Amino acid sequence: MKRIAVLGGGNGAQALAGHLASKGFPVTLFEHPEFRRNIFRLEETKTIELTGAIEARGTLAEVTTDPAAVRDAEILYFLAPSFAQEAVFSLIAPFLGRGQRLLLMPGNFGSLVLKETFGGRLPEGFLAAESDTMPYACRIEAPGVVNVWGIKNFMAAAALPASGTGDFIASVQDAFPVPLKPAPNVLSIGLSNTNMILHCPTMIMNAGRIESGNGRFRFYAEGMTDSVCAVMEAMDRERMAVGKALGLNLLSTMDDMKELYSINGESLRETILNNGAYCGHGADSPASMKYRYLTEDVPYLLVPVFEIGKKLGIPLPVTESIIRLASVIAGEDYLVTGRTLGGLDLDGVNG
Amino acid sequence: MKRIAVLGGGNGAQALAGHLASKGFPVTLFEHPEFRRNIFRLEETKTIELTGAIEARGTLAEVTTDPAAVRDAEILYFLAPSFAQEAVFSLIAPFLGRGQRLLLMPGNFGSLVLKETFGGRLPEGFLAAESDTMPYACRIEAPGVVNVWGIKNFMAAAALPASGTGDFIASVQDAFPVPLKPAPNVLSIGLSNTNMILHCPTMIMNAGRIESGNGRFRFYAEGMTDSVCAVMEAMDRERMAVGKALGLNLLSTMDDMKELYSINGESLRETILNNGAYCGHGADSPASMKYRYLTEDVPYLLVPVFEIGKKLGIPLPVTESIIRLASVIAGEDYLVTGRTLGGLDLDGVNG
Repeated sequence: MKRIAVLGGGNGAQALAGHLASKGFPVTLFEHPEFRRNIFRLEETKTIELTGAIEARGTLAEVTTDPAAVRDAEILYFLAPSFAQEAVFSLIAPFLGRGQRLLLMPGNFGSLVLKETFGGRLPEGFLAAESDTMPYACRIEAPGVVNVWGIKNFMAAAALPASGTGDFIASVQDAFPVPLKPAPNVLSIGLSNTNMILHCPTMIMNAGRIESGNGRFRFYAEGMTDSVCAVMEAMDRERMAVGKALGLNLLSTMDDMKELYSINGESLRETILNNGAYCGHGADSPASMKYRYLTEDVPYLLVPVFEIGKKLGIPLPVTESIIRLASVIAGEDYLVTGRTLGGLDLDGVNG
Repeated sequence: MKRIAVLGGGNGAQALAGHLASKGFPVTLFEHPEFRRNIFRLEETKTIELTGAIEARGTLAEVTTDPAAVRDAEILYFLAPSFAQEAVFSLIAPFLGRGQRLLLMPGNFGSLVLKETFGGRLPEGFLAAESDTMPYACRIEAPGVVNVWGIKNFMAAAALPASGTGDFIASVQDAFPVPLKPAPNVLSIGLSNTNMILHCPTMIMNAGRIESGNGRFRFYAEGMTDSVCAVMEAMDRERMAVGKALGLNLLSTMDDMKELYSINGESLRETILNNGAYCGHGADSPASMKYRYLTEDVPYLLVPVFEIGKKLGIPLPVTESIIRLASVIAGEDYLVTGRTLGGLDLDGVNG
């Protein structure tokens, strides 16, 4: 059985580590030392129980904050938030090399950052790839217990460069719980993450309600009203224009949602209202503007999409407006501090 | 007594017409033919009763939709919304000339538009001026009855060109209910209208709540939260930078509010919460995004401020972001359809 390292200590990381361990894979769970609190109990018990959509129990080979532990892993699954990517990359880089495979979930253009960590060239014989999502919808219920609400039917993945995607999927598929479908390249993976469309305008256009605090609200059903959907659709057209300039035929957020959830709708607003996963429950809004719907999705998705567009000469005025307002709210200029992909090598993604 | 024409048929226009008529001035009330419904009853009764802060009754000399009626007026007070200015200007222009005085309330850069109506040069001996507000806070309660909640202690005014401001105020002051204080020029009048700061971000950053409809909210107290105030303050700094480049020392929106309402506060948010006129009552939010807080304040205030800034080389990225989102919401590009002041003659404002 292939030796696996799972990087991260949150919901998705623990679910995947436990699931693969339950199938007999030797799994090392690595968490950044700064977030060691996430794995305190696991360091002792090394056992993860999955409940809900998956009923299984796995015993991990190792639970650690020592980056050298990834040296022997054949496959590395990275499930920490985007803002942790750079810090983790610089810790583990000395221990990466030939024969290893690394999958970022969600990638959010992180493989390009990893390449920069290595001075613009990944190690010989090493393959990095990205997916736009994680295998499970899940939540840690208690230490060592993860409740899995659902598991994806498939996930898209692309290697950097894209010429390695077939090799990558062939190498990891028997050690991954969900079928991986090849995507054109890592840019298409980042551009396909519709979180940026669904989350960012809704946060900003419900700021007063999120902050005034009296009464949480239904983020999708009550937050994504006509004007909010109009802004989403304008941003979505900009995102698809960037894709088109790159030769990618991206699905609109509405069509992507219809495909993912097997639902119908005449408009984005109607499609959202028809989505039970979004609108079938009560109040689910964030309680503050310091939430990853903005703090992750703006700097790690909207900013790189805007930067790619700028490089290609595609105007993204609505996307830029949302980035600017999110920056004022955060007190931080995301166009400077976000994932600007400064030395962007767009040609290099295809190989 | 000077002959007066009041242009407009709404709350402010009827209050001023009734008040001046009650003091014995011969007043003609002119409404655009398209809005004749506003004055149906008045055409018969010609009588306006003021209640509340003013108890008075005035009988008008004339109530009409015939623009030729303004020919004999010595003073014209214009109190229709900004979006009606151009239409009314083109109706009345043939009847304007030497000796007449016209005051726009609020001006919102309308005198520059009037000048364009005359091909870039106002008639010889004719003076136009602007104020940033109206004399009364009031509401029409029933046909011919206006409830006056309050009357301003003073109003700022400036003529176009500013060299005529002293002459203008001297000519109209005895036929105006509130002391007029000279402002540097009409640009300072438009730039001082803080409605654009208070209204526009609050509308956009409460869009979900305005449109989801379950429960109106307190626009100032609950809508102007920390993030909304952060965006207001960023826009306010841009507005003041434009003023500074024009040699104008504009008050911040917070300081303006403190002066107008005699209140204190350590921050904009706190000052708003301390303002009884804003926060001393129940739900007062607009029920839709098609409301003048956006449809008037964006195209007639934010757009010209942005255009003036662009001409002066002052960046206004936050203002531009709000304009762009408001444009998406309205389905109309306000940077094209708004008051862009295309042939802007900034030097001409001073004389």
